[in-house]
Parts: sequence; structure tokens; C-alpha cells
Amino acid sequence: MRVRILGIGMGPQHVTPEVAETIRSCDYVLAADKGKDDELLAFRRNVAQTYGVELVAVRDPERDRADPADYPGAVREWHEARVAAYERVLRERGGTAGFLVWGDPSLYDSTIRIVEQLAQRLPIDYDVLPGISAPQLLAARHRIVLHTVGAALHVTTARRLHDDVAAGQTNLVVMLNGSLELAGLDDWSIWWGANLGTDSEELVSGRVGDVLAELDAARRRAKRAAGWVMDLHLLRAPA
Amino acid sequence: MRVRILGIGMGPQHVTPEVAETIRSCDYVLAADKGKDDELLAFRRNVAQTYGVELVAVRDPERDRADPADYPGAVREWHEARVAAYERVLRERGGTAGFLVWGDPSLYDSTIRIVEQLAQRLPIDYDVLPGISAPQLLAARHRIVLHTVGAALHVTTARRLHDDVAAGQTNLVVMLNGSLELAGLDDWSIWWGANLGTDSEELVSGRVGDVLAELDAARRRAKRAAGWVMDLHLLRAPA
Repeated sequence: MRVRILGIGMGPQHVTPEVAETIRSCDYVLAADKGKDDELLAFRRNVAQTYGVELVAVRDPERDRADPADYPGAVREWHEARVAAYERVLRERGGTAGFLVWGDPSLYDSTIRIVEQLAQRLPIDYDVLPGISAPQLLAARHRIVLHTVGAALHVTTARRLHDDVAAGQTNLVVMLNGSLELAGLDDWSIWWGANLGTDSEELVSGRVGDVLAELDAARRRAKRAAGWVMDLHLLRAPA
Repeated sequence: MRVRILGIGMGPQHVTPEVAETIRSCDYVLAADKGKDDELLAFRRNVAQTYGVELVAVRDPERDRADPADYPGAVREWHEARVAAYERVLRERGGTAGFLVWGDPSLYDSTIRIVEQLAQRLPIDYDVLPGISAPQLLAARHRIVLHTVGAALHVTTARRLHDDVAAGQTNLVVMLNGSLELAGLDDWSIWWGANLGTDSEELVSGRVGDVLAELDAARRRAKRAAGWVMDLHLLRAPA
């Protein structure tokens, strides 16, 4: 049994030749189905159709948000249910399955960890092919390098942002934003993007203190247009 | 006059559909020629031929390494000479020019900065399209996510590595290696790769203290096979 983990970037425009060829060679591709209005599923369905391969949508288990008292336990159970759902499909169908990963599998994506767990239960050979990631598209749209000359780039999550700034980081890509938390960073520069690569793409850049209202409006516009918003940004301290 | 800055990843297998289409639409593409045995130039020539567009090789000025006393001045002069060389070609030919960038233009690449300077001297419209970067291919080859669950990723240079570790970083992608400086990191984990995406690709992973000899041998093997070595690695502190 073979599993290919395939980065497909942020649209058909990013599907590399090696990924396209690999999709064509799969017996079927797998994608999580998160329920109604799943735009990412629709996009993956479109990619599968483009390359003439069947897409098997695997219903994502409901995450039990009722009992925050046992949060780690709930997350573990949810992961376990996801792995079990994929395991059923692989046992039933066998052959070569592709996972179509939005963006790149190496950054804030759980597919590799899911497949590692599947490989402990099933005789699976698996490999990974890279795709264009959101920070790269953000940089391209703003026509910037992600770091200053010879310096470092710190890629982090919205939840960790203020701790990382307190620890001295001055150049950060911030991902997995629930909302924008920019308090105390008025003099920093921001390069922000939402729904990159899609029709509802929005871009804002400038001094944080000057663009807060513009950011808020753009974020609401993206959400209104697409029904969802996925955004990220680069933050840089004043020189 | 129009300039397109195009990430082409680490081989023709990574040239995305939007980049392929853009290359075809260029009047010519530009690439730095660093002199004899320039493998990266040969690769870009190959990409240009694949998409039926002329490649104009621009001789990279010699960098004066004689007087380290005025290092910043020497670097400034060298940058200036590079910009002037491209300016001459653009003035002479006009039209739409593409820059083929190995990897991705947003990470440790000078093309965007060169074009920003060109745009101050010539009426240029320019844009950027992303390409697969070396850290992504490193992660794919080792089948890993570049960070632990919900944690940060620090992308840095070999020259900064020990300062960044001293400042508390525990998960680092290290680029621009002249040589491997892993003293004091014996218990860390390393995922290393050289000449990724080429015939002379080498991969090593393990506990730093256990794989030092293997790393050294693989690095020399890559250099012997290709005549050059470009390597990078992910380092992670013990849990």
C-alpha cells in the first residue's frame, strides 16, 4: 500500500509538474470533508478532476468542544477518530492513495503526523512532495524578502506572538490567526494577506498603527466574499 | 518595461504552471553568470530552453576580496556593479524580462533587492511569483514537519546559529552554510540535506553526536559529484 503526501499550494496555478504527475499516478486521492461549505474540499475536488483521479472525501469527525476541562483528552480523541476514518478507507481500497495538502505539508499541517500513525497500523510506504506555502505567497504578493539582509525569520503562531516578541524576536511571520492581536505593536511594520491565491484575496501593508482600520475592513471583506477567512502576516520591528 | 521575478524551485519538476506560463510570456530571461562551471546557470538555461525563451546571461562582477578592511564598502560596490550590469541589458532590450530565481525569491535571495534598485533608475513594473524553497524540499525528503505541534520555526543563517541557540531557540532551519558548526549540539537532532533536487543530493539525519562522520562524508561526496555543495539543515533540541 502506498501513500503520497502532496503539497498543492494555494491553487491549481501552484501544482508543480512532479505533483501533477503523482496525482495522475494515484488510484484515488483523499481529502478531509469538514461539512457544509468546505471551500478547501471544493478546491481539492477541482484539482482531482483536473488530473482525472477520483477524490474520496473522508468526513472529519466532530470535535467535542463541550468539555473544555479535558482539552488535551478531547484533542487526542479527535485525532484518533480522524486516523481511524482514514484507516477504514485505506483498508477497504488499498492501492496508491494521495493526500492533497493545501499549501505545504511541512508547515502547520497535520497530514504527515496522521500518515505516521497510519503507518503504524498498516503496511504503508509513504513519501512527501512540497507545495507553495502561504508565507511565500504573502511575500510574493507584497514583493518582499521575508527577512532583512543576513538576518533571521521567526515563523510562529498568533497564540505565541506576544511571548515571542517579549523574547526579543523582531521579524515574525504569524500564522493560524483567530483574530489580529496587534496591541503594543503600533510602530511595527506589517505585511498582511487573507485568502491568498483565491478570488477573495486581500492585501494590506504599512505601519501597524496606521492600518488597523484598513486591516479590519479587509478581513471582514474577505470573510463576506468567501464565507471564511484564512490570513497571515509578516511583522517587523522599527529599525 | 516589465520585470517578472520567478521562483523556479530546485529543478524543472518544481516549475509551477503560473511560472511556466509567465516564462513563455517573457521576451527573454536574465540569469547571473558566475563564471566557469556555473551549475545554477546551466539549470536556468535548461528551464529557459524548455519554455522556448532566450536566456541572457549577465556576467556577475568580480567581488573584491582583497581588502577585508573595508568589507561593507566592497559589498556595496559589488552590489552596485551588479545592478549596473542588469541596467545595461534592460535599457538595451526593453520589453518583458524574467529573472529565474533558484528556490524562492523571499528567502536569502538578492533578486528582489536588485530589482527595487533597478526600478529607481528605470520605469519598471515588476511582480514576484513564488517557487519551492530549499527548507520545504528538505522537510519533504525527510518526511517531517518543520516544527513541533503548535510551536515556532526559526529560520537563520550558519553565521547566526550559535547566537540564536544561546538566545533560547530550540528548533532552527540553518541556511547559507560555509561549513557545519555543530560544536556543543551533540544531543540535538539534525535533518540535513545537500544539493537537494539534483543528481548529487545527499541526506543524513539522526542525533548530531552520532552522525558527524556520516555528515562529513556525505558533504564531501556531494561536492565531489557536483563540483559544488549547497546544504542546509533543521536542528532541534532534545525534548
